[in-house]
Amino acid sequence: MTGNLQFDAQGRLRHFLTIDGLSRETILEIFTIAESFISVGEREIKKVPLARGKTVVNLFFESSTRTRTTFEIAAKRLSADVINLNVGASSAAKGETLLDTVRNLEAMHTDLFVVRHNQAGAAYLIAAHVPPHVHIINAGDGAHAHPTQAVLDAFTIRRHKGGFENLKVAIVGDILYSRVARSLIRVLDILGVPEVRVIAPRTLLPTAVETLGVRSYTDMGEGLDDADVIVMLRLQRERMRGALIPSEQEYFNLYGLTPGKLECAKPDAIVMHPGPMNRGLEIDSAVADGPQSVILPQVTNGIAVRMAIMALVLGGREPAEGGRPA
Amino acid sequence: MTGNLQFDAQGRLRHFLTIDGLSRETILEIFTIAESFISVGEREIKKVPLARGKTVVNLFFESSTRTRTTFEIAAKRLSADVINLNVGASSAAKGETLLDTVRNLEAMHTDLFVVRHNQAGAAYLIAAHVPPHVHIINAGDGAHAHPTQAVLDAFTIRRHKGGFENLKVAIVGDILYSRVARSLIRVLDILGVPEVRVIAPRTLLPTAVETLGVRSYTDMGEGLDDADVIVMLRLQRERMRGALIPSEQEYFNLYGLTPGKLECAKPDAIVMHPGPMNRGLEIDSAVADGPQSVILPQVTNGIAVRMAIMALVLGGREPAEGGRPA
Amino acid sequence: MTGNLQFDAQGRLRHFLTIDGLSRETILEIFTIAESFISVGEREIKKVPLARGKTVVNLFFESSTRTRTTFEIAAKRLSADVINLNVGASSAAKGETLLDTVRNLEAMHTDLFVVRHNQAGAAYLIAAHVPPHVHIINAGDGAHAHPTQAVLDAFTIRRHKGGFENLKVAIVGDILYSRVARSLIRVLDILGVPEVRVIAPRTLLPTAVETLGVRSYTDMGEGLDDADVIVMLRLQRERMRGALIPSEQEYFNLYGLTPGKLECAKPDAIVMHPGPMNRGLEIDSAVADGPQSVILPQVTNGIAVRMAIMALVLGGREPAEGGRPA
Repeated sequence: MTGNLQFDAQGRLRHFLTIDGLSRETILEIFTIAESFISVGEREIKKVPLARGKTVVNLFFESSTRTRTTFEIAAKRLSADVINLNVGASSAAKGETLLDTVRNLEAMHTDLFVVRHNQAGAAYLIAAHVPPHVHIINAGDGAHAHPTQAVLDAFTIRRHKGGFENLKVAIVGDILYSRVARSLIRVLDILGVPEVRVIAPRTLLPTAVETLGVRSYTDMGEGLDDADVIVMLRLQRERMRGALIPSEQEYFNLYGLTPGKLECAKPDAIVMHPGPMNRGLEIDSAVADGPQSVILPQVTNGIAVRMAIMALVLGGREPAEGGRPA
Repeated sequence: MTGNLQFDAQGRLRHFLTIDGLSRETILEIFTIAESFISVGEREIKKVPLARGKTVVNLFFESSTRTRTTFEIAAKRLSADVINLNVGASSAAKGETLLDTVRNLEAMHTDLFVVRHNQAGAAYLIAAHVPPHVHIINAGDGAHAHPTQAVLDAFTIRRHKGGFENLKVAIVGDILYSRVARSLIRVLDILGVPEVRVIAPRTLLPTAVETLGVRSYTDMGEGLDDADVIVMLRLQRERMRGALIPSEQEYFNLYGLTPGKLECAKPDAIVMHPGPMNRGLEIDSAVADGPQSVILPQVTNGIAVRMAIMALVLGGREPAEGGRPA
Repeated sequence: MTGNLQFDAQGRLRHFLTIDGLSRETILEIFTIAESFISVGEREIKKVPLARGKTVVNLFFESSTRTRTTFEIAAKRLSADVINLNVGASSAAKGETLLDTVRNLEAMHTDLFVVRHNQAGAAYLIAAHVPPHVHIINAGDGAHAHPTQAVLDAFTIRRHKGGFENLKVAIVGDILYSRVARSLIRVLDILGVPEVRVIAPRTLLPTAVETLGVRSYTDMGEGLDDADVIVMLRLQRERMRGALIPSEQEYFNLYGLTPGKLECAKPDAIVMHPGPMNRGLEIDSAVADGPQSVILPQVTNGIAVRMAIMALVLGGREPAEGGRPA
């Protein structure tokens, strides 16, 4: 049900809520638009007029300076006006409901809400209630989905590996609590990656993880063997309830990506991380800053992909127009 | 004395501090400019170049995300640069006086301050000390005044009722602590509304409220009888000192606007609320979301009215120019 | 070593980190550009297109609304997009290092970081690690340096005194903990001020302060005698550890600048203060608001000087181009 919500009657992407229900064509269309925006970031004047006069609201019910910044930069490069709203305890204290907050903002003729909420489904709930001219992008909800991150990760893989057809992708770490992992597994499936593996201690693997179409490993050497792409997840220290890992040192020994463990993968394997990194916990600095790391290109690509998704849902799908300076 | 402060020597509106002292003509002029901005909000490119190159400072000594957002959106639609300043405990701790803060900002060649302060008179104090090229808009001070809200409420009444000549307007709820109520009563008087009523438990009515030219009621049925416009006030829970109401449930039973109580008013009566609403306390959701509610149009009108007031005090009073896209 | 970091191989100013190593010519070039921006602040449309399409990040590891506002206004008047980041406990809690934060932001193709940090050297550390197209401005680090303040102070002195050749400048107050004092002493030395004095209780004077090329006084009458310029420092109450001054009242009696003490200086001496002032502690209101005070012109000049420094490090050094409206 929820997958359909993001398309309008003509099948065009109206909201960007989840990877579920996206076609390969839609994802590739996002990639095409994003490629055109990559060059925008390298120009003297890094703006295109695509969203000029539009109002983008960063509606963050959960604080995330990093994610908010990427969307704020992306929106400003599209020439939109940006309003940052951290809706925390204060408005809850004032007794206003989530939907009243949103209805008020849309009554101000805002065009696009970037929603971050710690409860799965918040972005859906909002999308189900806004009028046709208002668009929603899910910037992360609970442990459920973080779909723009998944698309930028896939975009990064394509830029470095050329395609998806023959890849082995290993995702390592806090699979259980990671909104990144779930969304990424979906998008890699849609794009036709033949083999996706997850590697984690048993306590950080969801039960029945294989139903997602992945192979699970508890041993790094086995899981990384012959991999083309390694996606290290952030160990969500603040999110883990109870003692799911024995100690940080032991976690690093078993699952931290070191130059030694990296040798299990293909020699030209790329290393990814959604950030922010815990250096010395899930990843060794020698790897994070090494020649196989594409962690900073992910960040660069993230701006272009978020610009592309904003442009697409707002209806500005002509990359040619997007390519002209503002 | 304070009423004159907002006009310059030529009688033009220089600051917007209070409804007191405004002429009917000035209010109607704001309405005329606001009408021209209503269409701006419905365009593809929702900007006019009227305040291009001007710097608007949201100077909030009291946190109010909602009010700040409306002014920020309004200023950006006029193409102004906006600086948000939450001046809280920090600067008080640094020992800087209110006037030093303002003098510093005006020395940066800022043009317009939108001031929110929890003490009545803060906006006046500032307006009394700024040089001629700096303009002040009062965005709410203590329990005293919230004049932009009053003008947008009146503007909303005119858009839905066509005029003010034959109206009965009932204002319901926390009259005692409401900055909205005082400003609204004034503006309705200036615009010639023949009958304004206030309805509240005796503990929430100011003493001698009739001296404001209104009739007071403690019974909803009597107060709403034959009303054309109902303005529900937010019950300022956080502001009430002591037990002024028996219980929230009893308050809702006696003063909450339900479909049943709404039937006491005229069949085409409109229902307003400045927001944020306490659903189930002062208003029933069936009314808030019902066909007689104009609560969301109030929000939309609020942007246009705030743009109009900003344009007027900044001297950009030609709606024709304002009507051209940026 | 650190002084060279701010120049590129061609000797052009790439970062603005410290007064150390700046030539007189560079400082005078900043003054020339700043003069062209003074007029921009007085226009109807206070914007120039010099940094259009550039992204400026206010990266504040230490809260300073006042300093952040001056840089935000300066950047917006240059038509840059501005991102405000208060990087406090939250990201430290997330375990991301300073350099990872910066690398992420630069991967987003940001152009200029305005860095405020409570540790001396933070801006250097960042500058030492950014790629050539990224520029750093030090907006204050620990008790070490606050170089933009020093340049705007010197610029203000030149505007009021015409030059530096024959001046006696007295800096009064919390020399020990003041980042302003150190930077200012350097810049006055470079500009050829023949006599700089510092006046403070012995407990607020650095040991061996004379090695900075200044004369130190503990008596205001002696120190102010025949001075052309008096720079009052803010008494950093929150920064003093232990009882370095006997009492606030006694401090005011001995070192507070009153009309009486001001008479020790030349009749046309100017009085400066970097703000925010502690009225009644280090300065009497009669002096702060009196005819010899240039405290508010300092603020105005601060915007122009910060615009000039941003323009210079970004490579937009043609004031003629900067002078055209955006």
